Amino acid sequence: MKLNVSATLTYGFGSATQVIAAIEAARSPDQTILSEELRIWPDTALIRDEDGATGERRFRAAFSGQVQITYRALIDNGERTLLPRDARQHDWSELPQDVLPYLLPSRFSPSDEFMRFAQREFRTVPTGGARVLAVLDWLHTHLDYVHGVSHAMTTAEQTFIDRAGVCRDFSHLGIALTRALNIPARAVSAYALDLDPPDFHAVYEIYLDGRWWLVDPTRLAPVEGMVRIASGRDAADIAFLTSEYNCQCLNQVITVTRADADAGQQAA
Amino acid sequence: MKLNVSATLTYGFGSATQVIAAIEAARSPDQTILSEELRIWPDTALIRDEDGATGERRFRAAFSGQVQITYRALIDNGERTLLPRDARQHDWSELPQDVLPYLLPSRFSPSDEFMRFAQREFRTVPTGGARVLAVLDWLHTHLDYVHGVSHAMTTAEQTFIDRAGVCRDFSHLGIALTRALNIPARAVSAYALDLDPPDFHAVYEIYLDGRWWLVDPTRLAPVEGMVRIASGRDAADIAFLTSEYNCQCLNQVITVTRADADAGQQAA
Amino acid sequence: MKLNVSATLTYGFGSATQVIAAIEAARSPDQTILSEELRIWPDTALIRDEDGATGERRFRAAFSGQVQITYRALIDNGERTLLPRDARQHDWSELPQDVLPYLLPSRFSPSDEFMRFAQREFRTVPTGGARVLAVLDWLHTHLDYVHGVSHAMTTAEQTFIDRAGVCRDFSHLGIALTRALNIPARAVSAYALDLDPPDFHAVYEIYLDGRWWLVDPTRLAPVEGMVRIASGRDAADIAFLTSEYNCQCLNQVITVTRADADAGQQAA
Amino acid sequence: MKLNVSATLTYGFGSATQVIAAIEAARSPDQTILSEELRIWPDTALIRDEDGATGERRFRAAFSGQVQITYRALIDNGERTLLPRDARQHDWSELPQDVLPYLLPSRFSPSDEFMRFAQREFRTVPTGGARVLAVLDWLHTHLDYVHGVSHAMTTAEQTFIDRAGVCRDFSHLGIALTRALNIPARAVSAYALDLDPPDFHAVYEIYLDGRWWLVDPTRLAPVEGMVRIASGRDAADIAFLTSEYNCQCLNQVITVTRADADAGQQAA
Repeated sequence: MKLNVSATLTYGFGSATQVIAAIEAARSPDQTILSEELRIWPDTALIRDEDGATGERRFRAAFSGQVQITYRALIDNGERTLLPRDARQHDWSELPQDVLPYLLPSRFSPSDEFMRFAQREFRTVPTGGARVLAVLDWLHTHLDYVHGVSHAMTTAEQTFIDRAGVCRDFSHLGIALTRALNIPARAVSAYALDLDPPDFHAVYEIYLDGRWWLVDPTRLAPVEGMVRIASGRDAADIAFLTSEYNCQCLNQVITVTRADADAGQQAA
Repeated sequence: MKLNVSATLTYGFGSATQVIAAIEAARSPDQTILSEELRIWPDTALIRDEDGATGERRFRAAFSGQVQITYRALIDNGERTLLPRDARQHDWSELPQDVLPYLLPSRFSPSDEFMRFAQREFRTVPTGGARVLAVLDWLHTHLDYVHGVSHAMTTAEQTFIDRAGVCRDFSHLGIALTRALNIPARAVSAYALDLDPPDFHAVYEIYLDGRWWLVDPTRLAPVEGMVRIASGRDAADIAFLTSEYNCQCLNQVITVTRADADAGQQAA
Repeated sequence: MKLNVSATLTYGFGSATQVIAAIEAARSPDQTILSEELRIWPDTALIRDEDGATGERRFRAAFSGQVQITYRALIDNGERTLLPRDARQHDWSELPQDVLPYLLPSRFSPSDEFMRFAQREFRTVPTGGARVLAVLDWLHTHLDYVHGVSHAMTTAEQTFIDRAGVCRDFSHLGIALTRALNIPARAVSAYALDLDPPDFHAVYEIYLDGRWWLVDPTRLAPVEGMVRIASGRDAADIAFLTSEYNCQCLNQVITVTRADADAGQQAA
Repeated sequence: MKLNVSATLTYGFGSATQVIAAIEAARSPDQTILSEELRIWPDTALIRDEDGATGERRFRAAFSGQVQITYRALIDNGERTLLPRDARQHDWSELPQDVLPYLLPSRFSPSDEFMRFAQREFRTVPTGGARVLAVLDWLHTHLDYVHGVSHAMTTAEQTFIDRAGVCRDFSHLGIALTRALNIPARAVSAYALDLDPPDFHAVYEIYLDGRWWLVDPTRLAPVEGMVRIASGRDAADIAFLTSEYNCQCLNQVITVTRADADAGQQAA
């Protein structure tokens, strides 16, 4: 699917503030960047980072005053296939070395706390794809999508008790439960077609059958219409803006639209 | 310094249990492995992992019943220089890309929770080496080394309240406070000369002046006598044994002795 | 039912330590103390407290060195009737003033954290007795009775995540969920017939239909065979020993046996 | 000091909601209510509660739609004497029975978590008034009065880490530390002269030398100008409005002014 994505972000910084931003689409094997443009106003020197293994990109800068970041891109995200129920779960011995860290607990997805619950709840479900789907069903049944219950420090433990949160919280709990079942899981930030209201989206990927599969625990947007930005252990790693000090988000406009023939037909 | 290290670990596993072990000395640039031997009894197939960037090694296996792991090595850990007070703190823009994750909060070192405290407590101390040393002084003054207060799930937040813990807890809080000051910090497992009683040791490294520096927040063993095993965001990454299910540690014997001329003179 | 209860408790105190003990059976309207004896060795001055409203008794003392407390009593606990499913839930306006505090969150039963979960899980169950029984069923289905998972600081939140604990943990979570449903609940310590192994037992009471009803969330002992000791908001209020500093429990022997005719027939 | 207090509170309730309100000045021995008036609009049936021991008053009601509560009173709060540094600390054996619960941990003031810190920090300070004042000095030095850091679920543990909060948070941590030093402490809600901006105030009382002493850990208002409303273990007990479901505070206006001769002279 070809997708136009754009993000216009306006921030206010009190004084010179170091930031790391992850807003560009990843140059990952599953998507092709046909064209793109990143603009910062006022013009600021950037350090550009690209992860050789994942194609994920971040930039570093020191911002002060009011800053506007604009990113526009045309991306072909290929054909995302949905996780099959019979996707095979690997023994640890079969996993690529760089996948192993995604078995471990992290800041917002402390999977070690959920070992007993995950075993209790999902042990009768066949391993692999069926278990991952069972976790997604559990999240859908047991969590409400509600703004205002969670905040930037909310962990999967709190969401498990609150039974409510936003995309980030759904993902954190899903990741924690999946890791507690010995299946690697990582957080992913994305641009998402049909997300209403449009926003950065937080989803996750699980590793089965020799590859990563993208899933959306909120069921708010189709996996087929997602453009991957960054991946990591949880939200701490994939924030679209990590800043040294607090800064103020003054405005944020995200749009994702289809750019191919089907898009025109839809509109007809 | 040349050091003989040995670890004999005996575990009981209920049923076939997947494990990841990190007990071999790292082939990191700061230390040379002159000879070594790893034995598993009963003989078990191992997957060996080595991180190309850090030279750290882990092995994976599936164990059942009673298993004994023996590791012996002769290592030259070179000359570890102590962190100088004037070591320069980098702007984020100057850091190597692979150092950036160590600025972020992690499972047991949620540095985001300590931003305000760290600024309050250390803002008047010059940046760089002096701040790192001020954190170490703070830990020494405000924490008691006590067994039984903490456990495997204890985070830096709890240690900050408890004001007591073991090496792992000292390191977790030290790492959290250092990151909250915008200085990269990572957890390190080590064999340590003169640690009494002998055990695996948990210390940490901070990144200043273009390199990592090893520090021991417990002040229980000299940095010069440490052999690095593994590094990571916190204890979750560097456990000497990560196992799929609970297992029982039946026996553990660690020894570290000097192997060079000075050692003989000491004994004379 | 007539019951013989006895407790022999031996503690070691490092230095003179203030304690508050709650080990005597309550002189509550639902049970009659036929005879009893409390002995402290070595002999120590006691302050005796009795709550006029509940008949619950505590004693205060300053202990040092090794101390043995022995309590023996013959009690008629009347006929404890089991909570009926149709017991009516009161509006707040109907509750006695002294019952109101048991609607509020407490140290180990932070019911405010469970409002959303409790409403989600139990809103379709009729109010009153049926809801309380539904909570008890939920606890029975979702928690495992396991030693070693919890400790003296474990709250209902942690037990909700762990899905395991001992009688105290079952009660804390049950109390939190019940209060989150707007039903008063309080923790009760008790001597319990048929508890295996014999120990102090932690259960709870809920207020419906104009009275308190005793329930055992662990289902390990019959409510009919319980002798009430103390009640309060949670374990913090009803500890059998609250001490100023840590003390060591050297030995603890509890026995509860039937003293009436039926007891003889059982043994025959 | 004679004080006019008034509170006008407007709430919106979605559906019939049970509430408990604590907004009337206490009829406690240390203050005399010269005149007062409580009005609810629209007129609603109230259950009035008064605690015989403390003179504290609450009312219960079921509200729906928009409700305005107005309370006006003229109160003589006598002469509040400030806690003397040499106020004597009691042994537990000397405390009145009804003071004992204020030694125990509660929902927002889990003093059991702070035993080690409190001993470490304050053991060299003489017991009694000096220790309580040392805790107040510690709070003043180590906490910032900042809105937006804490919320309705924030406990003393989080405030201890955050090092910031509002009056309620200062009190919760102060109460926790004081109880951890074996001194009874209870939360108190109050109307406070000179509080800017005017609001309900959260302070606390400690029990020394045979009586309760009022202290303000925020140092934002003079103790002499406070009118006590309710007391309890922590904010859970003394909320000015406890409601069965969430309600919306639409408007709140509090005023406290001097009503005696001095007031006129001040204004001249």
